[in-house]
Amino acid sequence: MALVVQKYGGSSVADADCIKRVARRIVDTKLAGNDVVVVVSAMGDTTDELIDLAEQVSPEPPARELDMLLTAGERISMAVLAMAIADLGHEVKSFTGSQAGVITDSSHGKARIIDVSPGRLSGALAEGTIAIVAGFQGVSQDTKDITTLGRGGSDTTAVALAAALKADVCEIYTDVDGVFSADPRIVPAASRRAVITYEEMLELAAQGAKVLHLRCVEYARRFNLPIHVRSSFSLNNGTMVVGSTEGDKMEQPIISGVAHDRTQAKVTVLGVPDRPGEAAAIFRALAESGVNIDMIVQNVSAVETGRTDITFTLPQTDVAAATAGLEQVQGTIGFESLRSDTSIGKLSLIGAGMRSHPGVSATFFSALADAGINVDLISTSEIRISVVVRESDLDEAVRVVHSAFGLDAESGEAVVYGGTGR
Amino acid sequence: MALVVQKYGGSSVADADCIKRVARRIVDTKLAGNDVVVVVSAMGDTTDELIDLAEQVSPEPPARELDMLLTAGERISMAVLAMAIADLGHEVKSFTGSQAGVITDSSHGKARIIDVSPGRLSGALAEGTIAIVAGFQGVSQDTKDITTLGRGGSDTTAVALAAALKADVCEIYTDVDGVFSADPRIVPAASRRAVITYEEMLELAAQGAKVLHLRCVEYARRFNLPIHVRSSFSLNNGTMVVGSTEGDKMEQPIISGVAHDRTQAKVTVLGVPDRPGEAAAIFRALAESGVNIDMIVQNVSAVETGRTDITFTLPQTDVAAATAGLEQVQGTIGFESLRSDTSIGKLSLIGAGMRSHPGVSATFFSALADAGINVDLISTSEIRISVVVRESDLDEAVRVVHSAFGLDAESGEAVVYGGTGR
Repeated sequence: MALVVQKYGGSSVADADCIKRVARRIVDTKLAGNDVVVVVSAMGDTTDELIDLAEQVSPEPPARELDMLLTAGERISMAVLAMAIADLGHEVKSFTGSQAGVITDSSHGKARIIDVSPGRLSGALAEGTIAIVAGFQGVSQDTKDITTLGRGGSDTTAVALAAALKADVCEIYTDVDGVFSADPRIVPAASRRAVITYEEMLELAAQGAKVLHLRCVEYARRFNLPIHVRSSFSLNNGTMVVGSTEGDKMEQPIISGVAHDRTQAKVTVLGVPDRPGEAAAIFRALAESGVNIDMIVQNVSAVETGRTDITFTLPQTDVAAATAGLEQVQGTIGFESLRSDTSIGKLSLIGAGMRSHPGVSATFFSALADAGINVDLISTSEIRISVVVRESDLDEAVRVVHSAFGLDAESGEAVVYGGTGR
Repeated sequence: MALVVQKYGGSSVADADCIKRVARRIVDTKLAGNDVVVVVSAMGDTTDELIDLAEQVSPEPPARELDMLLTAGERISMAVLAMAIADLGHEVKSFTGSQAGVITDSSHGKARIIDVSPGRLSGALAEGTIAIVAGFQGVSQDTKDITTLGRGGSDTTAVALAAALKADVCEIYTDVDGVFSADPRIVPAASRRAVITYEEMLELAAQGAKVLHLRCVEYARRFNLPIHVRSSFSLNNGTMVVGSTEGDKMEQPIISGVAHDRTQAKVTVLGVPDRPGEAAAIFRALAESGVNIDMIVQNVSAVETGRTDITFTLPQTDVAAATAGLEQVQGTIGFESLRSDTSIGKLSLIGAGMRSHPGVSATFFSALADAGINVDLISTSEIRISVVVRESDLDEAVRVVHSAFGLDAESGEAVVYGGTGR
């Protein structure tokens, strides 16, 4: 008998009919001889509706109370899902994050899991009961207040419970069929990847693929827990995310896929005095403003002026904070001006095979050059090349790179992966 | 500094504007120098909407899961109310029933409070924080599962917390101005009672007045805690429910008011053999069917047949269960047939002064007789007379009795009380 942890997202439990379909799938998993723990998100738009309600009474609600409010969403979906399973004649109990033993720090709205004590879940499983758990939520160790885990929280709940319960697999159900070689809405020839490594998945998630969140993949890698990404709307095989791909390494594709991200912006600090410590002062000011930066490029200093330009990318939502933070230190640092640009797009080519295959960079930049696409910034890791291009060039760039690496499904073997772009 | 516990019902927090008005009132109470604990029900129709959702997936959802689902309602209202208070610049925290220390038995859907450990509330009050608590819910001592208290649960939560915290008063806010001498929709001349005793309030609540629930009045009486019934939509004085009315007993009204109840039915068991133990067998069968009966009348036995008829009243919703339960034992008991009637109404005249004032019954029955209203069943207590009449006669019966005892506001001194009939 295996222990399976399943996670269903908001679109999988959007209404009563969706919930009944999910209940049927859970019961099938149980009937196949497995112990089953299910983590569920709030139904469809519930979270947005609750945020709307909060905004009607307060422009800036206290984070503790916002967490209390939002956790009502999963409470509803988990209880209704439990009812639907009971209606199919199976023993089932729902548990809040707190009841399931999800212990977090006290950072409301973006709490981190610091311990998992799933004693009540183990007890339920021992009685043959299906356990339904509210995703996205926990209880703080210090204050015993209800917390939420922030973006990707339900995926992280599922992986954390699976690790604590020593589950055989964590199945993440979503509204796409798995991990693709690129966003199928941009590259119709994109195809599903059957197996992918944590390392590749982390790069993909970090570079804009939304199918799994960084935190949950990091968590799974730490515990070497296999994640199975599947659609709750089909019976397709989905994608297995594992520690290392088993079998013949010869069959490993060089490239996993192409990810893209439209949510970034670019800020250039012009005329920075070319003295030691100036760049550090700039990035310290940004850190103090709570801004996370991604790619950084420093121009070669102009000899005649002794000044240089520093360019970095950051989430579009952080541009205002970054600009304000830098303007406060303009006098101290002595840079000339700031320029920001939100019409950019980031494209990333990811593949563990890059390490041992020379020529990947050449193929990549040739494909972009042949399509007449100008590259603005470049950054690389061992298994990734990322470039910033004009936002208007992004879709075409994804297509030509996908094609240049033989990833198009028609071009023979499907060597695939990517994100949904959501 | 006084400690005030306030309870706001669903209609008082029906939408964002209502919640902001309630927040203002709570803050005013705090600014007047009081410590404040607020118990809140689910917003408006939330509970009904959640029940609808449950019914879409299961005709008979497990009680444990229904409690989990329904408690999401208060979780939403309490968090949003806390946000509205924070927006007015005051420290506030919301607490679930479990966090507030409302410990119950395990009877899902109708749990009884067995202990209150309001340590977290005391801690919040000590810091000058306003505490908002979810009404209607608790946590079971044995299973640590979430429970609901059933009908009148939020009122009971408020009184239980007020007793445990040794509050000075428990203010129950509703959508009527207090306790009236009769339902103002039936008797326009009905008027508000300024003070009423627990004893009278208990009889009123038991006889159909819906303004306060029996359980919460019983709880308040046990701890001698004053309840102040007020409208959240006005600044009127409302009604104080207290242990004994202070001041000159001479001014005590003989009659508190007239309550009525349209939710009862009448069942007659015809042709019961007139032997010892037959009535007991009938009521044992009803108890085993989970039916609560109210009034009972046994006819004088007919000498020629040795048989009698037994009539009792019960909630209309219990008629099917009662009939089924009795039919099962028809062979054993040997009664001839069953007859049920749902077109009845119950009228009750209540007043502590009845004890020492003869002639109340005479006035009561004369008023009904003068109006040509036939009385079907009669039951009395020390401070109450109840009769069953045709449902079509009920409103007229309430009016003539109200008038006969000088309760009409126009007839001089307002000697008042009653229920809203909701």
